[in-house]
Amino acid sequence: MLQLYIGNKNYSSWSMRPWVALRQFGIPFEEVMLRFDSFDTGSAFKQSLATVTPAGTVPVLVDDGLAIWDTLAIAEYVAERFPQHALWPRDGHARARARSLCAEMHAGFRALRSHCGMNIEAHLPEVGARVMAEQPAVRADLARLTQAWEDALAHSGGPFLFGNYSWADAFFAPVVARVRTYGLPLAGPAAAWADHLWASAGVQAWVAGALAERDFLPFEEPYRTAR
Amino acid sequence: MLQLYIGNKNYSSWSMRPWVALRQFGIPFEEVMLRFDSFDTGSAFKQSLATVTPAGTVPVLVDDGLAIWDTLAIAEYVAERFPQHALWPRDGHARARARSLCAEMHAGFRALRSHCGMNIEAHLPEVGARVMAEQPAVRADLARLTQAWEDALAHSGGPFLFGNYSWADAFFAPVVARVRTYGLPLAGPAAAWADHLWASAGVQAWVAGALAERDFLPFEEPYRTAR
Ligand SMILES: N[C@@H](CCC(=O)N[C@@H](CS)C(=O)NCC(=O)O)C(=O)O
Ligand SMILES: N[C@@H](CCC(=O)N[C@@H](CS)C(=O)NCC(=O)O)C(=O)O
Repeated sequence: MLQLYIGNKNYSSWSMRPWVALRQFGIPFEEVMLRFDSFDTGSAFKQSLATVTPAGTVPVLVDDGLAIWDTLAIAEYVAERFPQHALWPRDGHARARARSLCAEMHAGFRALRSHCGMNIEAHLPEVGARVMAEQPAVRADLARLTQAWEDALAHSGGPFLFGNYSWADAFFAPVVARVRTYGLPLAGPAAAWADHLWASAGVQAWVAGALAERDFLPFEEPYRTAR
Repeated sequence: MLQLYIGNKNYSSWSMRPWVALRQFGIPFEEVMLRFDSFDTGSAFKQSLATVTPAGTVPVLVDDGLAIWDTLAIAEYVAERFPQHALWPRDGHARARARSLCAEMHAGFRALRSHCGMNIEAHLPEVGARVMAEQPAVRADLARLTQAWEDALAHSGGPFLFGNYSWADAFFAPVVARVRTYGLPLAGPAAAWADHLWASAGVQAWVAGALAERDFLPFEEPYRTAR
């Protein structure tokens, strides 16, 4: 049985990606939650994680003693291990574009990620409005994301980025979570896709878990002082 | 024929990765060099690039009208397109570890990357010594890299990270370039691997190109005032 090590569902955007995809495709896995007490070397989080990987971040997928310690590598591993599921689009050109999008997400959009950290239970539209007004780099990130989503949807016709649900949708699920928390402006096909993705079974199951957590981590909360 | 859009060979670390791998495996491609005049929207670099991809970064691989705009996606595309070459290790576990390493590189090691930008022709050991003394995050990056390389080499026995040359080596070639420019400390198996990688045909061809460039881009030069 696959084991997926994750952080807090309310906050851990990277953990969300493989979790929602495995769930969406009905691939069984055991979830191992390592609460984010802190990211310091001596934290319980880092100490527990060190027994699985020296890389120091979640998610980690463990399969029969093998630890795969990065989201994109997990994506490729799961796609190879379960070829009966189209985790990547079957069409070669669509697959190459889906991988480009996921890799762009993986290394990029730093302004949006740092100013609008994932916080599923929070409702912070006034923060979002301020960030959009004051941070040109966040506006640029959102503009590029919208363009990339619209381009994929125009090619595929939707309802997911490449027609059927794929890793590409899972990779942007935490961005859609941010759009909702911070009330970021989306319109047209991109907004319709975001709603469709939000309503998908894997995302809904993760969100339910996040809302049930009722944990408050001050180091992940630049904008709230309490729940 | 594949076309690979790249930036200046002396400076463009992301461009280096697919270029050295294609060259090492003898896969023919046409190189299209877009000089880094600047990264501003109006720059010649951005304007030329916009005709190929809206994503705004190099490298971009173009195959028969399809643009693949991110290094990791290029890695997967080339591996699928040329299955006769073991661009990823053939062993499934080794492949998962190689992909984890490449993905960790792709999103990480930001401190090392920002304080020790790639600059192949430069010789800046005094800068390296200062950065290592003053920046704990750079020391932490180098410690994690060394550990990851030693771990891979201990598994495989070398001489490359996974025995034979693979994407994992190509992904770290720009880091080895930094180790050399800034005189960063490496020892034992990691140092032997770095030398072996530096001597490989793909890397040597890239370095020759970088040295022939004789271009000086002030915005890529925090430490030099001239060549
Ligand atoms: N490139 C990694 C990034 C993972 C990551 O940064 N995870 C965060 C939690 S969402 C983490 O574990 N941070 C711990 C730290 O930064 O020390 C991946 O894609 O898996
Ligand atoms: N995640 C991208 C990163 C590529 C990247 O940042 N390339 C740099 C040159 S080495 C670039 O084009 N920068 C232009 C800019 O930042 O505007 C990839 O792996 O291809």
